[in-house]
Amino acid sequence: MLLPELKLRRDKIRALMARQGIDAAIITCNVNLLYTCGRIVSGYLYLPLGQPAWLFVKRPNNLSGEHVRPLRKPEQLPELLEECGIPAPARLMLEGDELPFREYTRLAACFPGAEVLPCGTELIRQARSVKTEAELEMFRRSAVAHARAYAQIPSVYREGMTDRELSVEVERLMRQEGCLGLFRVFGRSMEIFMGSLLAGDNAAQPSPYDFALGGRGLDESLPGGADGSPLLKGQSVMVDMGGNFYGYMCDMTRVFSIGRLPQQAYDAHKVCLDVQEAVAQAARPGAVCEDLYNAGMEVVRKAGMTDRFMGTVQQARFIGHGVGLEINEAPVLAPRIRQELEPGMVFALEPKIVVPGVGAVGIENTWAVTSEGVEKLTLCPEDIVEM
Amino acid sequence: MLLPELKLRRDKIRALMARQGIDAAIITCNVNLLYTCGRIVSGYLYLPLGQPAWLFVKRPNNLSGEHVRPLRKPEQLPELLEECGIPAPARLMLEGDELPFREYTRLAACFPGAEVLPCGTELIRQARSVKTEAELEMFRRSAVAHARAYAQIPSVYREGMTDRELSVEVERLMRQEGCLGLFRVFGRSMEIFMGSLLAGDNAAQPSPYDFALGGRGLDESLPGGADGSPLLKGQSVMVDMGGNFYGYMCDMTRVFSIGRLPQQAYDAHKVCLDVQEAVAQAARPGAVCEDLYNAGMEVVRKAGMTDRFMGTVQQARFIGHGVGLEINEAPVLAPRIRQELEPGMVFALEPKIVVPGVGAVGIENTWAVTSEGVEKLTLCPEDIVEM
Repeated sequence: MLLPELKLRRDKIRALMARQGIDAAIITCNVNLLYTCGRIVSGYLYLPLGQPAWLFVKRPNNLSGEHVRPLRKPEQLPELLEECGIPAPARLMLEGDELPFREYTRLAACFPGAEVLPCGTELIRQARSVKTEAELEMFRRSAVAHARAYAQIPSVYREGMTDRELSVEVERLMRQEGCLGLFRVFGRSMEIFMGSLLAGDNAAQPSPYDFALGGRGLDESLPGGADGSPLLKGQSVMVDMGGNFYGYMCDMTRVFSIGRLPQQAYDAHKVCLDVQEAVAQAARPGAVCEDLYNAGMEVVRKAGMTDRFMGTVQQARFIGHGVGLEINEAPVLAPRIRQELEPGMVFALEPKIVVPGVGAVGIENTWAVTSEGVEKLTLCPEDIVEM
Repeated sequence: MLLPELKLRRDKIRALMARQGIDAAIITCNVNLLYTCGRIVSGYLYLPLGQPAWLFVKRPNNLSGEHVRPLRKPEQLPELLEECGIPAPARLMLEGDELPFREYTRLAACFPGAEVLPCGTELIRQARSVKTEAELEMFRRSAVAHARAYAQIPSVYREGMTDRELSVEVERLMRQEGCLGLFRVFGRSMEIFMGSLLAGDNAAQPSPYDFALGGRGLDESLPGGADGSPLLKGQSVMVDMGGNFYGYMCDMTRVFSIGRLPQQAYDAHKVCLDVQEAVAQAARPGAVCEDLYNAGMEVVRKAGMTDRFMGTVQQARFIGHGVGLEINEAPVLAPRIRQELEPGMVFALEPKIVVPGVGAVGIENTWAVTSEGVEKLTLCPEDIVEM
């Protein structure tokens, strides 16, 4: 990755640090290293406010460069910093929402003279929530590949398939188009393989995870998505795969059907498209997340579908979420979120309705906030495709 | 899952708690909930020493049972415990190597009257390292499905394929045989999609992760495994996919070749089989991990292959690792690990050699420690298969 791009990203973090009087950060979690170094290492990026950053690396062992040094353990950091001519930190931030308790305390103990703050995750996620032009370009490229994979879905459907079998073929299409497969989620609690495929009433199954919809899954050890049931005539099939082609989690959902669906499914799908339209119309710099959520919910209420929106037994309380290196970034379009949209933010908007006896319908696209409104990144037909 | 099985597992943890005078544990990380509850929830298992455990659940919202209660946030725990007639904890253990710093401190702050210890991860992992009969059965079933997928690999190879393309087909075979796909790793730093396929010199590429071998990967954002190069005559192809069929990470590596390989590759492969034989012969209850590592290394030394064993540019310093709900459990067969094997432990043994200009050769099987020795779980031909 080009150095000016990395400098730009690091300076965004530095600006947020400066506001809180923080003079240094230690960054060691994979996605944050990827963001600030353009690559993943086992090691530590030391990011001071007014000096160049240094990368201290355990693995790989063949990395070198102007501000790169090898290291074996975090206890070496103070000495290495001194050797590099970097003053000891006074207020140091660590990734307090990502580092495990023991690792955090071990790292903090290396700097007994510093005030150590756990706000690193928060600040870096804030910086990451506004994408650079280079990052937007990654999203655009991902979206094209993602759409190419989805366009081929009807060609891999065979009568008599189970939802699991179709999911496997869709995963293969995604991989063939270059998807890296890995689905990065912020936080320790949400797990998913490549994404989800939900057919029929399985779409209403509550899961422990905070995704838009659940699904029973194939095993108690991974409760979400396809459950192995045969695909039946009159069912909808919702495909929501993670579009990680270049590290960025492009998010897109499309609905397919086994034969024709009952009219109410198309009506519900139309409501979701209307929700998308209402939110996209209102979304622009300065728009408040909660207001966008409410604008969408108003459409759902008028259509009389609140009891099926974002699930039935268990309903998700959001209609959109930021995406980036992880699937769940800021901003979140949800109640009580008073954050305002800014140019460069990228979010997925996913109004979905579960029709009992049919399955889930609705839409999900990834959008970038521009200077005046929003740009749809995931360009792909939005009607229900009959297979 | 049957209650007696869960009781057995919980009592294994209780026994370890009792030794350290710990009277309660709060368990909230996915794999530990899976272990103790047979399922994943968003919530908390409160495990007291001398009373039945209680499960407090945020999601899914449709779970009920004798010792199950709904909850919204951890701050409700003390009150809920009182309502359930459970005394406040005096020495409480949390999952200190898994819970992020802020989540740990928030949870600990709910119990100001208790001494809170971060050793939960350690103790639960110790309990998990010795498998129950039911868990061994999961491994046996996984191993059969895993072997069935590997047996079909030659049938999906086509001349002119890239390593990525072959990897996608192998992943599909695994999924078709029921693999859940998710690759669970302990710790925050190691990431991998379904496993790795390494062909030719890519096998020698160092990665930031502590897997046996690296590989460049397809993108800087996920540096490991296939790199998109065409498969060429005279190259070895090492397939090491995670065999998560029922939550248990069965581990198996087999080597394929594009046409014939140079004789030195077969010789190196034979050395790896000899290492496996030497370690398997010595492995039994009471055997010390480091001694097993040394027994294997002795074979490598005699063959004069230490500089190519477990990598060339960067060499892994282990030849085996425990497996279970995660790919990296105890015991680890590595220098300075004085732990003794116990009946019921399950480990993967993976001697591998990188032959410059050819690729990686070697073997990996998953083994269970029995009362007298070890049982090989992954039964599948071990020679290099020419494609």
